[in-house]
Amino acid sequence: MTSEGSSPRPKRRELSTGRLEAFSDGVFAIAITLLVLDIAVPATAERHLLRSVVDLWPSYLGYVVSFSTIGAMWLGHNAITEYLDHADATFVRLNLLFLLFVAFLPLPTRLFADFIERESSERVAVTIYGISLLLTASLLMTLWRYAVRMKLVRPDLDDEEVQLLTQRLTPGLAGYLVLIIAGLFVPLAAVIGYLAIALFYIIPLRQVRPALRFWRQARRSPRS
Amino acid sequence: MTSEGSSPRPKRRELSTGRLEAFSDGVFAIAITLLVLDIAVPATAERHLLRSVVDLWPSYLGYVVSFSTIGAMWLGHNAITEYLDHADATFVRLNLLFLLFVAFLPLPTRLFADFIERESSERVAVTIYGISLLLTASLLMTLWRYAVRMKLVRPDLDDEEVQLLTQRLTPGLAGYLVLIIAGLFVPLAAVIGYLAIALFYIIPLRQVRPALRFWRQARRSPRS
Amino acid sequence: MTSEGSSPRPKRRELSTGRLEAFSDGVFAIAITLLVLDIAVPATAERHLLRSVVDLWPSYLGYVVSFSTIGAMWLGHNAITEYLDHADATFVRLNLLFLLFVAFLPLPTRLFADFIERESSERVAVTIYGISLLLTASLLMTLWRYAVRMKLVRPDLDDEEVQLLTQRLTPGLAGYLVLIIAGLFVPLAAVIGYLAIALFYIIPLRQVRPALRFWRQARRSPRS
Amino acid sequence: MTSEGSSPRPKRRELSTGRLEAFSDGVFAIAITLLVLDIAVPATAERHLLRSVVDLWPSYLGYVVSFSTIGAMWLGHNAITEYLDHADATFVRLNLLFLLFVAFLPLPTRLFADFIERESSERVAVTIYGISLLLTASLLMTLWRYAVRMKLVRPDLDDEEVQLLTQRLTPGLAGYLVLIIAGLFVPLAAVIGYLAIALFYIIPLRQVRPALRFWRQARRSPRS
Repeated sequence: MTSEGSSPRPKRRELSTGRLEAFSDGVFAIAITLLVLDIAVPATAERHLLRSVVDLWPSYLGYVVSFSTIGAMWLGHNAITEYLDHADATFVRLNLLFLLFVAFLPLPTRLFADFIERESSERVAVTIYGISLLLTASLLMTLWRYAVRMKLVRPDLDDEEVQLLTQRLTPGLAGYLVLIIAGLFVPLAAVIGYLAIALFYIIPLRQVRPALRFWRQARRSPRS
Repeated sequence: MTSEGSSPRPKRRELSTGRLEAFSDGVFAIAITLLVLDIAVPATAERHLLRSVVDLWPSYLGYVVSFSTIGAMWLGHNAITEYLDHADATFVRLNLLFLLFVAFLPLPTRLFADFIERESSERVAVTIYGISLLLTASLLMTLWRYAVRMKLVRPDLDDEEVQLLTQRLTPGLAGYLVLIIAGLFVPLAAVIGYLAIALFYIIPLRQVRPALRFWRQARRSPRS
Repeated sequence: MTSEGSSPRPKRRELSTGRLEAFSDGVFAIAITLLVLDIAVPATAERHLLRSVVDLWPSYLGYVVSFSTIGAMWLGHNAITEYLDHADATFVRLNLLFLLFVAFLPLPTRLFADFIERESSERVAVTIYGISLLLTASLLMTLWRYAVRMKLVRPDLDDEEVQLLTQRLTPGLAGYLVLIIAGLFVPLAAVIGYLAIALFYIIPLRQVRPALRFWRQARRSPRS
Repeated sequence: MTSEGSSPRPKRRELSTGRLEAFSDGVFAIAITLLVLDIAVPATAERHLLRSVVDLWPSYLGYVVSFSTIGAMWLGHNAITEYLDHADATFVRLNLLFLLFVAFLPLPTRLFADFIERESSERVAVTIYGISLLLTASLLMTLWRYAVRMKLVRPDLDDEEVQLLTQRLTPGLAGYLVLIIAGLFVPLAAVIGYLAIALFYIIPLRQVRPALRFWRQARRSPRS
């Protein structure tokens, strides 16, 4: 009887998680696609177009780094919501705060692209860029930690899987901190580092579970 | 027999609510992400980049206030559609009118960010900003009142839940009215107030139902 | 046995209609939200901001007309896909062509807003605007006619419902033709007319079915 | 027992494919709709507006070619995900790389539109445009080849259907290569060719399966 009465409740919650995902996907997709608007070929480039286009390399680098970072955040967000049983009011609010930083990333990207080659300002631009990336990644981590602490994750997940995702999300934060400091001395190297962190996030995040499942299956197999 | 004949009808309605939600989510997500496009660091900022970036604080404030407001509207819209059993033609039309104001918000935000520091025009900019927010919030309220009056809400919702959402949506409107007048004297204070209203909307909106459920469960428990 | 073997096929088709709807909703939502980007308050407006904002009325009018038109097209598209049983290759292609015109609408809107007050060019701008609207509406009509002719509509729809939607979509086309010619003499009046057509599309489109259902039920009731 | 234990697993995978599709649809829809932002009528066009609008033909051509190409890529992506049983970590990563190129297309489109009429730079612009299209199409091909090789496609698909889609995606790549070289001599002809490839992709892609089904049914019919 209790189960009959409570069955529509989780359905409602799932519905709201659905719109949370749809809205987040929208913000991710738009932020990632707006990046290209900030690459501007000067109209006066006519005579040496190829050279002008090549000279825009900081813009392409910024595009690739920010695209990879937002893509990595999307993958991480994806992994979190996939592990989620339901959301609560605070999670939805934290998610909005996280999206506020995701949607903001095109600005520091533009800053970096515009000022990377100019001696006097490139350190400022790269530091602002790094801090923005660090804050965004921290909020993603907070989202996940909150979901775990408040037991919003699916009950059928075992502690190993939960810990593995936590371990995946942690090193990036330390990496950003180190690179922000390194960027004060070698700005361009820091940006390459940001790209490396994004690729680190992107590459193995979703291989965690199949690998784990394979490992556990291998342990059980001898008995069956 | 009647139930067999009428069973596909609600399905169709739900489908149309699905696209209404998807379309609305799209408009919300785009409006909220376009806000960053209006923050422009002048290209001449090279020598004093840090200072130029700091001087853009009205743009960041505008970004945060408008992001929070659109986020709050999205949460409110989310709560309404979650309570909805089906939509009718007028609800869909009202929803379009509401989205017309949501999609318009980037313009008064830009206006506020560009003119807040300029003595002669900041009152005009802040007043226009406040009126835009008031109109958007009023239309959200109208959407909800219409849904209640026309019995579009789910039949399993009790009056308490309906009234609680109405009570949640009301104070913001009065708040905007007061702040629009206050903004004629202290423009910046009004904008901080707009942020406060947005946070008020965001924070407890979705905690209403679980709290209510907990309270009712507590009442029933002694008997079981 | 045949029904068992063919049951997964319609599922696939529905899935593809799902992405067609999601993609179309995305284009509609973005086109409708981009309109606001084309309203630009000149940075030199400081001293007479209120007046500058008021002087932008053609931009607001363009925003409202184009927002209403794209909203109306979205409602029409919504009605068509709701009536659809499945799509075929040509329908998907026609839909892309239709979206090409929907996504193009921000340009003639900007043109109209920029040139409406300038004697020598307002006729050109308004005519281009009208032709764009006419082409978009014609393609929506073509989509619907194609779906009917190729029997893509749901088999449980009766001819009355099909005809009613056709009748709803037709007068707008004639209206655009008349207004394009009228716009050569009184440009502003034509634009007001475009708004009227959009409102005509928006208002009763989805009241068709409930009204019809009520009417049929009333006919049958005496017997039951 | 095994099927009971593993039944929630594919559900999770499908869910993640759902967000992959939603996110991709978002990027496609935004990239395709942003194209219009790059068409700018000069504000000084007042006196000869019609002529100024006509003189923008390279922008319209770029709009149509890029819209068709992105539309074609969307159709191809649609066909691939429809054939997909589930995604794996590498597929999701490849998909992000593919979207990086899709979201980049507005830039070479703008380049082409701005420089096509200028003798000294049009070859550079058209070549960059062609290479961008080639890379995007190659990545779509890679996505499909990877899905086939890693057996991510639905088990009920027969080899014929798989081969037909592969054959559909191949000629475009050779076409782009030929046209990039041709574009060094006759830039405009190459662009017309890019449009032809996009239309080739768009037109028969999804007629493959029904045609095939019809053909197979015709073979079997005599016996039944």
